[in-house]
Amino acid sequence: MRYFVIIGQTATASGEFLLDDLPGSSGRLDVLLRCIRAALSFSHGLRHDTRVYLVLRGGAQAPRTLRIDGASAKFIRPDERSLAILVKKTLAAAVNLPASGFVELRPGLAVSRGDWQCALPDMHGAALYWLEQSALDIRNAELAPGTMAFFLGDHHGLNAETQGELLALGAVPLSVGPVSLHSDDVVTLVGNELDRRSV
Amino acid sequence: MRYFVIIGQTATASGEFLLDDLPGSSGRLDVLLRCIRAALSFSHGLRHDTRVYLVLRGGAQAPRTLRIDGASAKFIRPDERSLAILVKKTLAAAVNLPASGFVELRPGLAVSRGDWQCALPDMHGAALYWLEQSALDIRNAELAPGTMAFFLGDHHGLNAETQGELLALGAVPLSVGPVSLHSDDVVTLVGNELDRRSV
Repeated sequence: MRYFVIIGQTATASGEFLLDDLPGSSGRLDVLLRCIRAALSFSHGLRHDTRVYLVLRGGAQAPRTLRIDGASAKFIRPDERSLAILVKKTLAAAVNLPASGFVELRPGLAVSRGDWQCALPDMHGAALYWLEQSALDIRNAELAPGTMAFFLGDHHGLNAETQGELLALGAVPLSVGPVSLHSDDVVTLVGNELDRRSV
Repeated sequence: MRYFVIIGQTATASGEFLLDDLPGSSGRLDVLLRCIRAALSFSHGLRHDTRVYLVLRGGAQAPRTLRIDGASAKFIRPDERSLAILVKKTLAAAVNLPASGFVELRPGLAVSRGDWQCALPDMHGAALYWLEQSALDIRNAELAPGTMAFFLGDHHGLNAETQGELLALGAVPLSVGPVSLHSDDVVTLVGNELDRRSV
């Protein structure tokens, strides 16, 4: 299994954003939506071995985490507006969530209260990595066999507190090259490296 | 310089598509729009060394080619709707185009009548490559120093005729890994390989 956890510092945790102005109305949820496509899609369908967690730290409902499971998700289309509609409906349906645990609200889409730590029970035994520009190149890294989880930030990157918490859990920082890229490009590059190693 | 030429078998060459239903109304121009972001954007701005050509083979105005120049383009935002608005306005303004040659209609955005061959004069002396799943891995390829042009298809891939024409020009086929990916992911992976080699 592959897990991608993308942390949106300002991305709204509620469905109250405008489809016609995603960047301006959603706390840059658009950055995270593009990561869904990059993580889950390939030419012929969805990656059944991959789950994406979008950590939504913006707005009154924050923090919440949205989980999209490539094995069971339906209606995942690659265009941004379709993804936005799906996420908007899912977040709007997330009322009376329990104090902890994911609640599936649409096929393969589940929401939990809480920051990225709420995803940890799903990742039991996974090797943890986080993406940072100055770290060891993933091409030269020894990656653990089996399940891996990759944490990355939005356009603001991961803040120092989150980096510290991940380090305390033994997470290893990695980079994907010499140029600082958009989050969805980073997801694409990590996915490609894993594809190459799993042949 | 880097050139990316993305060939849209059905992508509309006119501005007559719906922003609220890009995949359904534009002949999958959305696939090509996402390649603009992947080719031109990095965390801190636009790549001044890169130009993108979208070959639009769909609709009554086809074929036309839209050129986006990273060095002079303005208002290039990463979200798909913003890119769609910009492209829609540019295509709508492309009236009475001359028989050949690009006409700049917005800063850094130009349109020409014709298929991909209309981009060749811009690429004088560039080494030509095209992306194909079964070809030599780009990581193992000797790439020419200097200017390079990469041709790729949309979700339908490059058709046999275009492949033959590229081969006749001496273009070299390359792949980006073992899994067949979306066009924008392919652009990201090629860009990353070039970034790594230019350090």
